[in-house]
Amino acid sequence: MKIVVINGPNLNMLGKREPGIYGSETLDAVNEWLAAEARALGAHLEFFRSNIEGEIVTAIQDADSYDGIILNAGAYTHYSIAIRDAIASVKTPVVEVHLSNVHAREEFRKKSMIAPVCAGTISGFGKASYKLALFGLIFLEKDSNSITIK
Amino acid sequence: MKIVVINGPNLNMLGKREPGIYGSETLDAVNEWLAAEARALGAHLEFFRSNIEGEIVTAIQDADSYDGIILNAGAYTHYSIAIRDAIASVKTPVVEVHLSNVHAREEFRKKSMIAPVCAGTISGFGKASYKLALFGLIFLEKDSNSITIK
Amino acid sequence: MKIVVINGPNLNMLGKREPGIYGSETLDAVNEWLAAEARALGAHLEFFRSNIEGEIVTAIQDADSYDGIILNAGAYTHYSIAIRDAIASVKTPVVEVHLSNVHAREEFRKKSMIAPVCAGTISGFGKASYKLALFGLIFLEKDSNSITIK
Amino acid sequence: MKIVVINGPNLNMLGKREPGIYGSETLDAVNEWLAAEARALGAHLEFFRSNIEGEIVTAIQDADSYDGIILNAGAYTHYSIAIRDAIASVKTPVVEVHLSNVHAREEFRKKSMIAPVCAGTISGFGKASYKLALFGLIFLEKDSNSITIK
Amino acid sequence: MKIVVINGPNLNMLGKREPGIYGSETLDAVNEWLAAEARALGAHLEFFRSNIEGEIVTAIQDADSYDGIILNAGAYTHYSIAIRDAIASVKTPVVEVHLSNVHAREEFRKKSMIAPVCAGTISGFGKASYKLALFGLIFLEKDSNSITIK
Amino acid sequence: MKIVVINGPNLNMLGKREPGIYGSETLDAVNEWLAAEARALGAHLEFFRSNIEGEIVTAIQDADSYDGIILNAGAYTHYSIAIRDAIASVKTPVVEVHLSNVHAREEFRKKSMIAPVCAGTISGFGKASYKLALFGLIFLEKDSNSITIK
Amino acid sequence: MKIVVINGPNLNMLGKREPGIYGSETLDAVNEWLAAEARALGAHLEFFRSNIEGEIVTAIQDADSYDGIILNAGAYTHYSIAIRDAIASVKTPVVEVHLSNVHAREEFRKKSMIAPVCAGTISGFGKASYKLALFGLIFLEKDSNSITIK
Amino acid sequence: MKIVVINGPNLNMLGKREPGIYGSETLDAVNEWLAAEARALGAHLEFFRSNIEGEIVTAIQDADSYDGIILNAGAYTHYSIAIRDAIASVKTPVVEVHLSNVHAREEFRKKSMIAPVCAGTISGFGKASYKLALFGLIFLEKDSNSITIK
Amino acid sequence: MKIVVINGPNLNMLGKREPGIYGSETLDAVNEWLAAEARALGAHLEFFRSNIEGEIVTAIQDADSYDGIILNAGAYTHYSIAIRDAIASVKTPVVEVHLSNVHAREEFRKKSMIAPVCAGTISGFGKASYKLALFGLIFLEKDSNSITIK
Amino acid sequence: MKIVVINGPNLNMLGKREPGIYGSETLDAVNEWLAAEARALGAHLEFFRSNIEGEIVTAIQDADSYDGIILNAGAYTHYSIAIRDAIASVKTPVVEVHLSNVHAREEFRKKSMIAPVCAGTISGFGKASYKLALFGLIFLEKDSNSITIK
Amino acid sequence: MKIVVINGPNLNMLGKREPGIYGSETLDAVNEWLAAEARALGAHLEFFRSNIEGEIVTAIQDADSYDGIILNAGAYTHYSIAIRDAIASVKTPVVEVHLSNVHAREEFRKKSMIAPVCAGTISGFGKASYKLALFGLIFLEKDSNSITIK
Amino acid sequence: MKIVVINGPNLNMLGKREPGIYGSETLDAVNEWLAAEARALGAHLEFFRSNIEGEIVTAIQDADSYDGIILNAGAYTHYSIAIRDAIASVKTPVVEVHLSNVHAREEFRKKSMIAPVCAGTISGFGKASYKLALFGLIFLEKDSNSITIK
Repeated sequence: MKIVVINGPNLNMLGKREPGIYGSETLDAVNEWLAAEARALGAHLEFFRSNIEGEIVTAIQDADSYDGIILNAGAYTHYSIAIRDAIASVKTPVVEVHLSNVHAREEFRKKSMIAPVCAGTISGFGKASYKLALFGLIFLEKDSNSITIK
Repeated sequence: MKIVVINGPNLNMLGKREPGIYGSETLDAVNEWLAAEARALGAHLEFFRSNIEGEIVTAIQDADSYDGIILNAGAYTHYSIAIRDAIASVKTPVVEVHLSNVHAREEFRKKSMIAPVCAGTISGFGKASYKLALFGLIFLEKDSNSITIK
Repeated sequence: MKIVVINGPNLNMLGKREPGIYGSETLDAVNEWLAAEARALGAHLEFFRSNIEGEIVTAIQDADSYDGIILNAGAYTHYSIAIRDAIASVKTPVVEVHLSNVHAREEFRKKSMIAPVCAGTISGFGKASYKLALFGLIFLEKDSNSITIK
Repeated sequence: MKIVVINGPNLNMLGKREPGIYGSETLDAVNEWLAAEARALGAHLEFFRSNIEGEIVTAIQDADSYDGIILNAGAYTHYSIAIRDAIASVKTPVVEVHLSNVHAREEFRKKSMIAPVCAGTISGFGKASYKLALFGLIFLEKDSNSITIK
Repeated sequence: MKIVVINGPNLNMLGKREPGIYGSETLDAVNEWLAAEARALGAHLEFFRSNIEGEIVTAIQDADSYDGIILNAGAYTHYSIAIRDAIASVKTPVVEVHLSNVHAREEFRKKSMIAPVCAGTISGFGKASYKLALFGLIFLEKDSNSITIK
Repeated sequence: MKIVVINGPNLNMLGKREPGIYGSETLDAVNEWLAAEARALGAHLEFFRSNIEGEIVTAIQDADSYDGIILNAGAYTHYSIAIRDAIASVKTPVVEVHLSNVHAREEFRKKSMIAPVCAGTISGFGKASYKLALFGLIFLEKDSNSITIK
Repeated sequence: MKIVVINGPNLNMLGKREPGIYGSETLDAVNEWLAAEARALGAHLEFFRSNIEGEIVTAIQDADSYDGIILNAGAYTHYSIAIRDAIASVKTPVVEVHLSNVHAREEFRKKSMIAPVCAGTISGFGKASYKLALFGLIFLEKDSNSITIK
Repeated sequence: MKIVVINGPNLNMLGKREPGIYGSETLDAVNEWLAAEARALGAHLEFFRSNIEGEIVTAIQDADSYDGIILNAGAYTHYSIAIRDAIASVKTPVVEVHLSNVHAREEFRKKSMIAPVCAGTISGFGKASYKLALFGLIFLEKDSNSITIK
Repeated sequence: MKIVVINGPNLNMLGKREPGIYGSETLDAVNEWLAAEARALGAHLEFFRSNIEGEIVTAIQDADSYDGIILNAGAYTHYSIAIRDAIASVKTPVVEVHLSNVHAREEFRKKSMIAPVCAGTISGFGKASYKLALFGLIFLEKDSNSITIK
Repeated sequence: MKIVVINGPNLNMLGKREPGIYGSETLDAVNEWLAAEARALGAHLEFFRSNIEGEIVTAIQDADSYDGIILNAGAYTHYSIAIRDAIASVKTPVVEVHLSNVHAREEFRKKSMIAPVCAGTISGFGKASYKLALFGLIFLEKDSNSITIK
Repeated sequence: MKIVVINGPNLNMLGKREPGIYGSETLDAVNEWLAAEARALGAHLEFFRSNIEGEIVTAIQDADSYDGIILNAGAYTHYSIAIRDAIASVKTPVVEVHLSNVHAREEFRKKSMIAPVCAGTISGFGKASYKLALFGLIFLEKDSNSITIK
Repeated sequence: MKIVVINGPNLNMLGKREPGIYGSETLDAVNEWLAAEARALGAHLEFFRSNIEGEIVTAIQDADSYDGIILNAGAYTHYSIAIRDAIASVKTPVVEVHLSNVHAREEFRKKSMIAPVCAGTISGFGKASYKLALFGLIFLEKDSNSITIK
């Protein structure tokens, strides 16, 4: 399985600011940890991050033949029709991920412009949200018993 | 770990109608499968289901000393302030779960009255949404490496 | 033909209060009258009434194999997504009924949460609304000439 | 009893287009069928149809001394204050009729500008909606036992 | 005088959680205190509490011949048209009560679906809100000098 | 205890117009009656009334060191941010009072711009609303048993 | 001066229904009375009435070279962009007239689609609204002292 | 007849600014002209002007026994519930007046908070709006033929 | 090819008013010019114009067997559900046309009630909008290379 | 240069309450400091403060011939159309000033009714907001190099 | 004539996905075809495409001296104020183009943020929309007879 | 002090277009002038400009250790949650700047998505807005007397 993890604007600030909310690990550390988890499951992860909406659009288009996309679109979640259209234009299933519970914040964060075209959504588990999204993609692609836990 | 899985209105119809959307397994079958998964992780699951909003409120109150609540409030998700208040009144972390991607359906299903007071949300993975919620609760209670996958 | 007549909250007050608006007959009297009408048409009526939203959900689910449901959901008409989902989850055609013309009352009564998933709607004819709903179900199930009037 | 059946814009297309939704009978055929039903009940029906809002207004005014109006205002249902005012300006009871369940269609069809000034509403029973409206008018004018069914 | 005090969802959690906001007394303790106050005024109190909307509807209907209802409908205050209709269906005056100042909380708590059909509203005085409601009912039933204070 | 009773626009018309709604007593008579009640409780009342929003702002500012403010802001209740800010700028607890049940009137009267910064609200009890507000202030300042009723 | 008085839908019902609101005179009687008033002022009146929106559009276009239009567009006032555009397309000043105070009625009557393109508006004076509109047109065309009253 | 003409905020700037819109006459000149017109009709005019909302409230209350109020509430027209309540509290009929056509300006000027409680409204005729309001009051008090024009 | 060009309300004023915006040619001149263009392309044009909404509905119904409809519905564009339904009831493709750029005008002109059921839309090119619509219909019916330009 | 500094409701509470937000200086102290700054720049400041909306209207009218107005309208910023009209009625440029960042507070404070008619806006710099407004007025009146900084 | 064709996000997916809707040709093929059409008309086309909003802004700025811009802004059509401002900042006329009829899709696609500042709009003709836009630009620049068709 | 001045989309067009509104100086000229002003105050300015939202996000992140950011986000002001989040993610105070008074333009420009997380806002002073922002940052960092004017 080949999966790309796409992180959007300001997620490069992870670990640097507000560790009480977002944890003290950098995005690089989270990515490494996640890659190791994936390898254990026989999946290969690639990573992409950008502050630029249009580059996220391109990254999604480029993953047309992948087995899955884990997407934390950050602020663009709430207004990017361009990212929504990119998701709708590829065959790859996309899982929407958020570190924090976006519903417990400002009113405008309750609206996700991309959720209607994603396969599923996971939010509120900190970095474990990515891990759950990885599991979720495997469940969607294979079946819900495909992971044996110990 | 002691966790209660609470299912709301019309989830007793699972497996009977629209298997294309919701799968062909009954809720009992899903529960048994989930209980087995939990046992493998050293967690004990209890189950509660009701069509009655107020009974769901009571079930949440009764789980005040549990380690977690997995809640699929069904239609009540979108308008029950009573369930929201029940969640806010207990110490137990609650994970909001949906079988389907609620954002891809009618406009009124995009609003979750309970999400702001839940710990996290998982939707769109079919019965695997419950399994991911179980993992998520363990990650929240212990840490995100507490489950070793094989 | 087997049809269930489901009445919701406060309809047990029928005949006791505001007879100018709702008539002076009790719900029991209306039900007996309607049952006799149905028998003349070869249909068997059952009756259910509850103030509890979730019990109405259950009553609808229980009528999955019936030939029709006549539903006066009372106040729940305007906000119960749970009842809407119950209607959508059964094969049985449902006719929405109101004694009074709900559109001539408060603004919030103009919105019916259940109408989009019902087969038809009848309102404003007092107790005759139920009789028309009975005829309507027969027309839907058989054909629009199935009743000969004298 | 003298009753006028008023049909609004595009109902002359009945039977010609989308028979799956609206049936394969023309409006003339429906009218003839309905007139026969009425005669059996001792009622005389007249028919009027127009695509022009103002002509429907006039037709309603002209029925000031009739015993009832069966009105399918078509698209004008949703925005014609002129037709609403015409209904309010006559003594004759008006029953609003729709062939299809308008609530199951576009959002703007959920609003009826005329319902608040009609006696009752019937929708979703195909051509039988007219027959139910005829019965309804008789029930309103006489009493709800005035029709004996065989 | 015979008055019923009806408490809605989550009020059984009183004293157990968030004592800073709601006080450290349980609902039973508040009820006993209130009953003693009432006895001193020559009034007899009965108590009812439920998490279930429909049971609150029934409790209100059952108090049709009482001299007053003190109602803290909790979360249902903001969306229960069923409870509103129950209040409108009985002759008994109803006083709406809230422990906290609901206007100082989330936006959706500013709307009371039941206030338009209640006699009066009291909020923000903690358990004393009930005592003021008791006085208020006596003032409404007798006159505003009917209580002598010492 | 030193408390000021502030009445806003049009309350000087009390007793002169619409006695069916507002009672036949003038504001002076109500004030005298209330002052006597207060004296019995060991509290001293002062009175202020104005049609001018800004003078009500000043009256609130001037009561910064008082033990309480009973405020019937009349029409300004619904739009005066200036009065809201004045309330927020003083240490004194403010009880919002209305003679009638404002929720049973026009839609725009359902919104209170000042309620979120008041300690509590009392409405619908006629002149007794002021008496209940007086009791409420004493309960807030001392405790809910501070008044013995005979 | 040549002025046309255009009356819209349902104004032909004047004097026949609800004389308490609209007076007991027919539109013909009002028109004759108004024509006499105009003659006294040296103005010639023409009259047009229709229930059909598009005919009112045409009547306005036909008055392009007149000195004034007195327009009671009835229900079309609130939604006819076609009539608005007709007014904007002619050089003739238009005075919007209403018999009753439209602002004291349903919410949707508070919006006038045509007012922004009219010269002025007069409402609430019964048939005298037309007379005031006639005066107003003369004031606009000549000057505000052009009428000497006795 | 005794009538008071009440002008609100910024009308003292009349004649000083934007003469293209509001004319080059001062308010004093307009008032003198209007007083002369009134005398010719046997009516006595008094004048009041203030920038202060509450003083306009008082002026309306003070005119409780007058035969009419001509009110140009200026900006307060659009948001003063206090002035609305003052109008509703007096027996005197009030005519709402505007120099310009307020509907042709900003969106927020289309809403009149006071119109629903006024007898009638006149706008768009410059200073002649006052003259028409004077005529209108006489027509309302006497009858629509009470003024003979020469 | 047989195509009908349908023009709605106020388009008969073309060339008479506001030539700066709409050009100085009359509608007849535009129609002749367009007919000549069509003949060069082997298409036959018919023309219909009306101020009456219902007549436009009829004209569309009458073109059920034509190859195309060029429709400038004028003001009705923004609110006529009747015209929308007429378009939906015929097989003929409809191209919505506007002379000016409607989006650069009042807010209410931004909404097209008919656009969702038209094949395409062209606006802002003056009389050339009709010519482009003609080309567009040919492209839709034949293919996008069917016109050779010189 | 002659400039008036107008402060609105509750700004007399400056320094007395919430010094963490608004600073510990009184308005008098701020005014003296600002006057000294102005003198250094060759400008003469006058000061006006009121809790009364209409007095602020008058103060703005009185500054018609001044070189500038520095206006902190406090709460009136958000709803006073009267103050907006006063600003529009004078030639003097007005700079809107706020001590705190109003956009970081309640939703209703995000709307400024007066901003569209002011020359500029400055908010969020504490008492320095006034100093920046003073500089801004000089820049607007003279040019942006008219102040030499040392 | 020098014209630039600017295509926005996801238009590079043309021909790859959903050929039923968007056709089976790639954007390169469409561009080549369009360039050939333009050459036949004596116009030179340049092409630009980007997923990045800001690069589209730059491309528009760079075309300040061109004779026209054909712009399919894709998803950015609905929310990019930056692109709107870019269009407003150049002298070049811009024609807004869409392949599909955007009004027949999701509600949010009905709003065009850029239409008010474009010269015209063409949508719904597939790749022929570009050809019509090319014609339209020539009509705007030269005149509506500048293209002879054969 | 080290401060970065960030300018967003279309500000590179400064001086080229609409000099009546934005002045005739280019952005480079404004920047040079501002840099000189800053040097006189002992502050060092850096400059960044981009049409790309994500590059502005990055520029803000890169200024995490600076003493201040002067930000004219242009069109992105009104909808960029990504820029809002970037501002919230850095310690540096940000001053929002606009050349023109954005409140006097289109409705959608009245909403600033970034204002709630900025330290302050300055708008309407042309290029002097930047100079005032520079002063404002110094006042915020040091104190409001830190600049001596001559």
